[in-house]
Amino acid sequence: MTALSPTLELACDLIRRPSVTPLDEGCQELMMRRLAALGFAVEPMRIEDVDNFWASHGRDEGPVLCFAGHTDVVPTGPLQAWQHGPFEALIDEQGMLCGRGAADMKGSLASMIIAVERFVAEYPNHKGRITFLITSDEEGPAHHGTKAVVERLAARNERLDWCIVGEPSSTTLIGDVVKNGRRGSLGATLTVRGIQGHVAYPHLARNPIHLAAPALAELAAEHWDDGNAFFPPTSFQVSNLNSGTGATNVIPGELTAVFNFRFSTESTVEDLQQRVNAILDKHGLDYQIDWALSGLPFLTEPGALLDAVSASIRTVTGRETTPSTSGGTSDGRFIATLGTQVVELGPVNATIHQVNERVLASDLEILTEIYYQTLVKLLA
Amino acid sequence: MTALSPTLELACDLIRRPSVTPLDEGCQELMMRRLAALGFAVEPMRIEDVDNFWASHGRDEGPVLCFAGHTDVVPTGPLQAWQHGPFEALIDEQGMLCGRGAADMKGSLASMIIAVERFVAEYPNHKGRITFLITSDEEGPAHHGTKAVVERLAARNERLDWCIVGEPSSTTLIGDVVKNGRRGSLGATLTVRGIQGHVAYPHLARNPIHLAAPALAELAAEHWDDGNAFFPPTSFQVSNLNSGTGATNVIPGELTAVFNFRFSTESTVEDLQQRVNAILDKHGLDYQIDWALSGLPFLTEPGALLDAVSASIRTVTGRETTPSTSGGTSDGRFIATLGTQVVELGPVNATIHQVNERVLASDLEILTEIYYQTLVKLLA
Repeated sequence: MTALSPTLELACDLIRRPSVTPLDEGCQELMMRRLAALGFAVEPMRIEDVDNFWASHGRDEGPVLCFAGHTDVVPTGPLQAWQHGPFEALIDEQGMLCGRGAADMKGSLASMIIAVERFVAEYPNHKGRITFLITSDEEGPAHHGTKAVVERLAARNERLDWCIVGEPSSTTLIGDVVKNGRRGSLGATLTVRGIQGHVAYPHLARNPIHLAAPALAELAAEHWDDGNAFFPPTSFQVSNLNSGTGATNVIPGELTAVFNFRFSTESTVEDLQQRVNAILDKHGLDYQIDWALSGLPFLTEPGALLDAVSASIRTVTGRETTPSTSGGTSDGRFIATLGTQVVELGPVNATIHQVNERVLASDLEILTEIYYQTLVKLLA
Repeated sequence: MTALSPTLELACDLIRRPSVTPLDEGCQELMMRRLAALGFAVEPMRIEDVDNFWASHGRDEGPVLCFAGHTDVVPTGPLQAWQHGPFEALIDEQGMLCGRGAADMKGSLASMIIAVERFVAEYPNHKGRITFLITSDEEGPAHHGTKAVVERLAARNERLDWCIVGEPSSTTLIGDVVKNGRRGSLGATLTVRGIQGHVAYPHLARNPIHLAAPALAELAAEHWDDGNAFFPPTSFQVSNLNSGTGATNVIPGELTAVFNFRFSTESTVEDLQQRVNAILDKHGLDYQIDWALSGLPFLTEPGALLDAVSASIRTVTGRETTPSTSGGTSDGRFIATLGTQVVELGPVNATIHQVNERVLASDLEILTEIYYQTLVKLLA
């Protein structure tokens, strides 16, 4: 067996630590040692039961670039379904690096460290600053991870101009897609009150199903916005609808609907809430809504960061990347609140969260090179 | 303690038999012996686990009057909540006959027997025929009770012109209300199919809640008929509505709605089904409906039976009775299918199915007299 490249060696070291959320299992210690050796100021930030760290290298003047990511991984699922042990970290005959976290996102973390090591060695007096924001609770509740670290950074006025999150953004080939934003997610539980009664005596009851149906029909048909060049139109979906006692001769007293907005930057939380209330009020409903904001939308428009990332992908792979705002939420939403341009760039996401998670080993070499070229374009 | 009247003595004998559905505990044996002694042809009809009997007295020519009822009673509920034992059958200081079945409907059965005994003694050669149709499964599934007996009677072409069911129809004073019909009850389970998916990718899914809402709104707003002089308009009520996986980020694949019509004689089952289908089709739904007909409506318009009953109530109590079709279903719906005029007449129903069920003892004497007067008017 030939010696592994530095990126693959570090990726394997990280995968062999079974850091299922919120455990870190020494991954961050490993990363911090490497960064400290490069001259980074390293600051562990354990918050409640979650390990996080912040690290910084460079000068106060000039732009600040942040590499962000997480050392925690999702559970393995059924072990007998894995072809190799999930924490063995071996490269199979197809050249795939196999193991939990290979794609999401220990491969990216290794590429970031190696790229930064190379860059700092070649450009010891680089412009601005390079930072790392690493958590071990991205796959879990995420309360004491990136969100909490960002709050601390904001409190001490840390400036973050650009951020590359190592989330596996690629769909088929490394670098084919980067995420330059995410839709917002706004959830709600709606309770419509009626008056319970016997089906044979409807005049003594008020059926919340009958009262709510036209309002739900109007909410479902509503056109919320047109979206824009970067976002599809805001969408509204009822995920759960329940009413009834189970008995067939009882008019229920209450109806519950759980719904969710995935919203573009063309709508605000307040707009959406006000428009929902207006429709419910118009139908004369006696209701209560409990809102839950999961994440504000963010968008990184074409500019220095997106240009540098796209150009680096072109240089290294020869392909034009596609910026996209589709899919679920990520920690990028927390970092974007600092006014930061945020791009997610990582390996192919086809096997994430599945058994036999794996990534083409050579893709991690390419990813290291893309991160390195981006550093050169932005901070050399 | 003074001797009990014949009606009260028989009522007490029946109440002391703990005939909780579908048990009869010898009640019918007691009734059949009394009727056989009067010259009735008595025919026990045990069907599966249910005791029923049919009895007949008189000639083939002329009208046939049937007394119908049930010997079974509902369970007692918590015994400690009863002031007296539910099967003790005692008359308290307020003159109330207390016990399970006092009102529903062993009091009526006793009144029927005593009224018929008096009538046959006084008019041994009465017109037409007097019959009894008694079951012990009215409060339960009711599959092998009146319904099954009626099927046998229909199969052998028995004619039933008039029927008095002993259900406790009175609301405040004995005879204040008689039931001259009941609405029909038509139930259904509607399943609307969509395509399950992720809330973040609504274009790949079809949300059955969104699809069904406008159709449910239209069904709830629909005016089905105007009712008539005897029935309120047909009513439609959704009793249960369920959709969703419980997860807030999943668009469900299916919605289920359980609904019920209480319908007047102005609508038919086929009409209602066809109109529901038309609305669902108009909204382009992919759906399935399982219909369940609980009972057809029946109506006894003013005529010989209702006139005789009303006049008898007036003669005995001095009050004008009110015919009503309100409330739930009863075994009358099965008997009406023979083309029979059916009236329900019994004691005050304020305590039925409750603990401390009771009825004014003197009301049973009055009821006996009303039944007797009705016999005189119809068959003397």
